Amino acid sequence: MSSASRTVVIVGGVAGGMSTATRLRRLDETARIIVVERSGHVSFANCGLPYHVGGVIEARSALLLQTPASLGARFELDVRVRTEAVAIDPAAHRVTLRDLASGVEEEVTYDALVLSPGARPVRPPIPGIERALTLRDIEDTDVLVAAVAAAQGVEARGFDDESPEPATAVVIGGGFIGVELTENLVHRGMQVALVEATPQVMAPLDPEMVAPVHRALRAAGVDLHLGRSVTAIGVEDVTLDDGTVLPAALVVAAIGVRPDTTLAQAAGLRVGDRGGIAVDEHFRTSAPDVYAVGDAVEKVDGLSHEQALVPLANTANLQGRRVADVIAGDGGTDRPVLGTAIVGVLGLQVAATGWNEKRLRAAGRAHRAIHTHPASHATYYPGAATMALKLLVDPETDAILGAQGVGREGVDKRIDVIATAMTAGLRARDLAALELAYAPQFGSAKDPVNMLGHIDDNLHSGLSACIQWHELDAALASEAALIDVRTASEFAKGSIEGALNIPVDELRDRLDEVPAGPVVVHCAVGLRGHVAARILRQRGWEDVRNLSGGYTTWRAGTS
Amino acid sequence: MSSASRTVVIVGGVAGGMSTATRLRRLDETARIIVVERSGHVSFANCGLPYHVGGVIEARSALLLQTPASLGARFELDVRVRTEAVAIDPAAHRVTLRDLASGVEEEVTYDALVLSPGARPVRPPIPGIERALTLRDIEDTDVLVAAVAAAQGVEARGFDDESPEPATAVVIGGGFIGVELTENLVHRGMQVALVEATPQVMAPLDPEMVAPVHRALRAAGVDLHLGRSVTAIGVEDVTLDDGTVLPAALVVAAIGVRPDTTLAQAAGLRVGDRGGIAVDEHFRTSAPDVYAVGDAVEKVDGLSHEQALVPLANTANLQGRRVADVIAGDGGTDRPVLGTAIVGVLGLQVAATGWNEKRLRAAGRAHRAIHTHPASHATYYPGAATMALKLLVDPETDAILGAQGVGREGVDKRIDVIATAMTAGLRARDLAALELAYAPQFGSAKDPVNMLGHIDDNLHSGLSACIQWHELDAALASEAALIDVRTASEFAKGSIEGALNIPVDELRDRLDEVPAGPVVVHCAVGLRGHVAARILRQRGWEDVRNLSGGYTTWRAGTS
Repeated sequence: MSSASRTVVIVGGVAGGMSTATRLRRLDETARIIVVERSGHVSFANCGLPYHVGGVIEARSALLLQTPASLGARFELDVRVRTEAVAIDPAAHRVTLRDLASGVEEEVTYDALVLSPGARPVRPPIPGIERALTLRDIEDTDVLVAAVAAAQGVEARGFDDESPEPATAVVIGGGFIGVELTENLVHRGMQVALVEATPQVMAPLDPEMVAPVHRALRAAGVDLHLGRSVTAIGVEDVTLDDGTVLPAALVVAAIGVRPDTTLAQAAGLRVGDRGGIAVDEHFRTSAPDVYAVGDAVEKVDGLSHEQALVPLANTANLQGRRVADVIAGDGGTDRPVLGTAIVGVLGLQVAATGWNEKRLRAAGRAHRAIHTHPASHATYYPGAATMALKLLVDPETDAILGAQGVGREGVDKRIDVIATAMTAGLRARDLAALELAYAPQFGSAKDPVNMLGHIDDNLHSGLSACIQWHELDAALASEAALIDVRTASEFAKGSIEGALNIPVDELRDRLDEVPAGPVVVHCAVGLRGHVAARILRQRGWEDVRNLSGGYTTWRAGTS
Repeated sequence: MSSASRTVVIVGGVAGGMSTATRLRRLDETARIIVVERSGHVSFANCGLPYHVGGVIEARSALLLQTPASLGARFELDVRVRTEAVAIDPAAHRVTLRDLASGVEEEVTYDALVLSPGARPVRPPIPGIERALTLRDIEDTDVLVAAVAAAQGVEARGFDDESPEPATAVVIGGGFIGVELTENLVHRGMQVALVEATPQVMAPLDPEMVAPVHRALRAAGVDLHLGRSVTAIGVEDVTLDDGTVLPAALVVAAIGVRPDTTLAQAAGLRVGDRGGIAVDEHFRTSAPDVYAVGDAVEKVDGLSHEQALVPLANTANLQGRRVADVIAGDGGTDRPVLGTAIVGVLGLQVAATGWNEKRLRAAGRAHRAIHTHPASHATYYPGAATMALKLLVDPETDAILGAQGVGREGVDKRIDVIATAMTAGLRARDLAALELAYAPQFGSAKDPVNMLGHIDDNLHSGLSACIQWHELDAALASEAALIDVRTASEFAKGSIEGALNIPVDELRDRLDEVPAGPVVVHCAVGLRGHVAARILRQRGWEDVRNLSGGYTTWRAGTS
């Protein structure tokens, strides 16, 4: 392949595709680089679309980061929007491009072809599903913005002008996009019902971690239907499998996305078991000189090293850059994915990396869980907010398997630090000694991440033992005593059935009240429980376990 | 040593000392643990003191995290405030404790003695220095709060009640504490002059990084005197070495701190070359069963592995915990220090980790510097703020040597991620592939940390070459051409002398205007400069360097 004359065609002009194109130009000034994009826009801000629907990002133009013209001027790219790659002839190194407006087709012979078609929203076969809007590109956003306005206009008519009934919307699917859309429709003043088929929104989180999100959604007036499926979408309503009929001037489907493999499959490229385009570590598909990146391809999971679908922008952009390196002959290797993700919802930051406990349990993988409820920064400095953090650890190797966080502030930072530690192969107890930036506005002298490391160290060395919220019933059934070491006034406000209240500061004087045999202790979040457990262990109780995350986590998991 | 009966005396009841005491109790329920503290309070919030002076932390009680009584109840500690350890007899394992109120002394025989006396403010021999207040403990804070009130009361008298002249204060020393105090006195409505003997505040930062801090201080009305020393402190003013006389109803000295080694030296313990108590990796001093932790001891620098003084709370707390492990026989090893630190000043976050360029240069250590000016989060989402980031890298090994950041938002997160990467031994180019949590409120699909990795990768592979702001004059003197690739309107607003303006989007059409021979290109921050450099390199220019951090860094460094 002569670099002076090669032609590279890139299918898809957003994250992965445009990263490929711009990087490739910086590496190869002379290649002919054609980028085709089915929608009317390239390099648009996918992740910002819900916020334009909500009016948080006011100007539509803010979503359009680049244009074909600007990309042409800076990178000499031949960018063609409203153009679809409709067929590939791998043997002939030929791709057929169709101008969607005119229907005119052109065959282009490529030296390299990069597929970055992304993922498309799932549309389940529900009666009336054609009424449900989805959100993938600028065109979808325009339709949704107009539909919101129409719904609000229609419903406002005929009512008292000063307090019109809010327009109704049903969002189907409580994943990240569904929750973001829910927030944004609330922000638009709509009455929103959110329907999720599983018992919780945001699958990457474990159930006890997602409880604050459910609370926040309900507090914002969202009508939350968990564990419910939609059976029919009517012209003015949505029917659920329990017979509930929800008024719905607007219906949005955000049930998930699937790799867009239409073109790849038609060309006979190999698709993996997970349903994404199969690529090797250099992004090579099963056809020579055809590469694929982004949401359409299967990645390698960082923990299991198995194939995985992780449709996230960080990885799509990195893959785009690296496939350009491959094509230019400068190396370029994929890296495994952790699936680090975050969403902002109604003032909460909700973030996760690695595997959650549900997945570890389903895979039969040994793990220990650590729950904490630290403050985002020193509590004596104004504005500190409590977050919930969860760390999942391999009990044999002390490897970090995953982490989750929910709170109003500082969650993003802790998850990023833990994700970095995971990538670097730090053990969980190594988190204790990380030297993180501390001033009272920003953290604590013992940062929440350090505390996770200290707790893990105690568990790893056997100094302490924990019990999880979902293990408590079984422990109590097998005769363990439960000691609540919070103050009497905390205890009075709510307690776990069967708990005996002995405040930690009185414990040494009231040891005779603690039954012999196995004991579970707990406080509000786990700190005083740890002190109490250490007292009891040293005073002769051999089987003492501290309830991880204390009453707070237990309540989140059981209510 | 019998664990059932041992006596452990801990000198110093704040970060290191109290971490030792409480951890030791959790490990050893039966030890007699005595904590002596010279001041009237233990476990107080050191790092919050400046903010109580400023009224940001309103309640004095918020600074008092624990009391001797609360620590006694929970941890069975014998906590003695206003008590000083005045002598140690290492051979006899005996320490003399003096009750400062009564003068009564008691000799206590210890099995282990832990010194955590902290550091004391430096008071240089300036005439009148006795008038300067310092800030170390609650008592100092009370004095300073009263002095602020008195200064404001005095100066307000005799002026128009509705617009009294602000009371004047002079802060001597522009380190972290000096800058925090300056901010807080401004917050109190005082007219503050800040005098710093070196050409910049905040020594951990390089000069071009600290420019935004100087701007913010001046914008807040602070009268900044850099490169100036105080020669005399009078009853109403402060005189500088250039003859300037600053009115000063209040004078605060924040010149730095020195390890408090009085007791250790009197007992014949070894003090290191840096002036801190010398300890081994298990916190053992030169005397048997005498340990030391915290700001008073010398640490091991993470890069040079030489002794260092790093008086920071994160390390003091960790050392306190780990020396308890040592005493309890459970291991407990120190770790090297990076010196990760942050300060909030007038809405800016200023943070650093590892070595700065000044120090690398002074040590003759090879390094490359990378400057960027990324947004705290996706620019299309409201509220993004631009920060300045700097990464220092070993050009041979690609090891990360240090990082600095300044901005209104998100600096803490990036420095924490880089500090974690440094501790874990990631190379600089590994930052490119970190999978950080992205949603438009929190970051970018290519996070600022990823971008540092991409740039480093380009430099490491030789794809691009950079030039630093302080190297530009020499390059231009040796006949390099300077091409400013910003737009004509950006160029018109300010440019580097001698620069030729060819906007990057016109570069391919105007190559004939670019002189043969060495070329330096620059844009506003470095991104377009990189594109331009790649065009020129591929079009035949062999020596093309991109100005690191662009016009923004150059201006910060040279103005």
